[in-house]
Amino acid sequence: MSAQPEPTIHRSLLIIGGAEDKMGRATVLRRFVRLAGGERARMVVIPSASAFADEAAEVYADVFARLGADRTVTVDIQSRAEADRTDAGCGAAAIDEATGVFMTGGNQLKLAQLIGGTEVGRAIHRAYERGAVIAGTSAGASIMSRFMISMGDEGITPRQRSSQLTAGLDLLPDVIVDQHFAQRTRYGRLLSLVAGSPALLGMGVDEDTAAEITDGRVLTVIGDGGVFIADARRAVTDAYEAAEDAPLLVSGAVVHTLPAGSTFDLQTATLMSFSEMHPDVDMRRSEREHPDGSAPVV
Amino acid sequence: MSAQPEPTIHRSLLIIGGAEDKMGRATVLRRFVRLAGGERARMVVIPSASAFADEAAEVYADVFARLGADRTVTVDIQSRAEADRTDAGCGAAAIDEATGVFMTGGNQLKLAQLIGGTEVGRAIHRAYERGAVIAGTSAGASIMSRFMISMGDEGITPRQRSSQLTAGLDLLPDVIVDQHFAQRTRYGRLLSLVAGSPALLGMGVDEDTAAEITDGRVLTVIGDGGVFIADARRAVTDAYEAAEDAPLLVSGAVVHTLPAGSTFDLQTATLMSFSEMHPDVDMRRSEREHPDGSAPVV
Repeated sequence: MSAQPEPTIHRSLLIIGGAEDKMGRATVLRRFVRLAGGERARMVVIPSASAFADEAAEVYADVFARLGADRTVTVDIQSRAEADRTDAGCGAAAIDEATGVFMTGGNQLKLAQLIGGTEVGRAIHRAYERGAVIAGTSAGASIMSRFMISMGDEGITPRQRSSQLTAGLDLLPDVIVDQHFAQRTRYGRLLSLVAGSPALLGMGVDEDTAAEITDGRVLTVIGDGGVFIADARRAVTDAYEAAEDAPLLVSGAVVHTLPAGSTFDLQTATLMSFSEMHPDVDMRRSEREHPDGSAPVV
Repeated sequence: MSAQPEPTIHRSLLIIGGAEDKMGRATVLRRFVRLAGGERARMVVIPSASAFADEAAEVYADVFARLGADRTVTVDIQSRAEADRTDAGCGAAAIDEATGVFMTGGNQLKLAQLIGGTEVGRAIHRAYERGAVIAGTSAGASIMSRFMISMGDEGITPRQRSSQLTAGLDLLPDVIVDQHFAQRTRYGRLLSLVAGSPALLGMGVDEDTAAEITDGRVLTVIGDGGVFIADARRAVTDAYEAAEDAPLLVSGAVVHTLPAGSTFDLQTATLMSFSEMHPDVDMRRSEREHPDGSAPVV
């Protein structure tokens, strides 16, 4: 009698550019529910970035239930002391039981200041490492970066000091995440950031669009818009000396606009494949790449 | 007694992104006057793109006079028959005497339909070849391309069929010019165009900024904003098959944002140099590169 092979655990992030569809096909949130285990999913919603945390948590619990996942716990952290609790019934304990963790939109700086370096932050990392899917939209997307955009200006032209980096949750060490990318015209600020930190990739996610990232490396695009990648590793720039607010020289950056169906290797910064398939078809294809043996386990 | 060497003739384009300063330092228009010969300049303004042609012509004649060039003739073409006149006193004859030709903003499609392939169009080419500077702002910038953007949508995400190309004046065969670039968020449409025509470079010029192009090859940036270059020659794209309005795959395009003081080789699509000098200083430097012997001759 041979032993069952150990299931392979894949680490999964679902980085959503904000304003994802909740009432219609809900392609992006449907993908989240599927990755979290569908009917067997145990969801945690962290609405602490939002100024309307209760309402946000309720909306997502309802959508997840409509999409087949009816067990959602809200972990609404409003102080670092609360985030550091370790007793039974605390937020970190709920996250330790989850197959899917969802961080809502709002203010990423507030969220990072509440949970960064706390027990809740560590519980999210534990969940990620054991294969639970970690999702976030808008502010909840930004916070996944090690270097988090906390604020910045709109526009196409990269300008000196047009945005601020602070410490994020560090689920994605080498990529700066931006969201509402096309809708809020964030090309310039993302380019200015990678010009200043060329070792990092810039990733801008459009609204109602998600970057699904497997094992920290393979990006698959889901949803209606595009995911933009900026690679300034070989660019020439004057970011070290330009005056405040001056247009920056950024010459030779490599950019990628990736619609649904694209897969991209974040380590080599190259396109892996692209299919013109309908998003639903593409989702089924992605599911084949996550066979049952690789489903999240707790 | 040795013969005087023949002066070298440099061909000059000044491609302005619109909304250039006229009341203050007027850096961009000052450069135009200087390139056209300063006090010795003989200017032609072509205001036909504008719905307010008389007013536009008057504004530019006044600015040029304030900047030292007081001989400006208006060539306001309003029909192709008029553009094809060859009698004394016609528009083409005035252009044949000019050291500087300036095309105002307005509707580039109207301007191209009035002068493209006419005697006025040919006179502009003759002026260019003999060293007169050809300048245009906004619509007058777009029309310089062989492949002219006649209309298009705003936004960062490149989308299929988000813009239209028509035949321009063909002073710049291998570059698609766009204007009001940052101010009207034209990154997406320019990327979609070079994705569809990867042999062409895309060039987007910000407002109150100019791309000075010498001999069809060397670009120098002047003014307050930036000049953006998109090079999709090595990009992977689905522009040949994407559905209308779908986000396009454009993976591996090389981009350059160039502030004032940058020089760029349009033939090799590489940065030549960059200086952090004050725009005025930079202008003086550029003038040294156009010594008296290379001033426009008629």
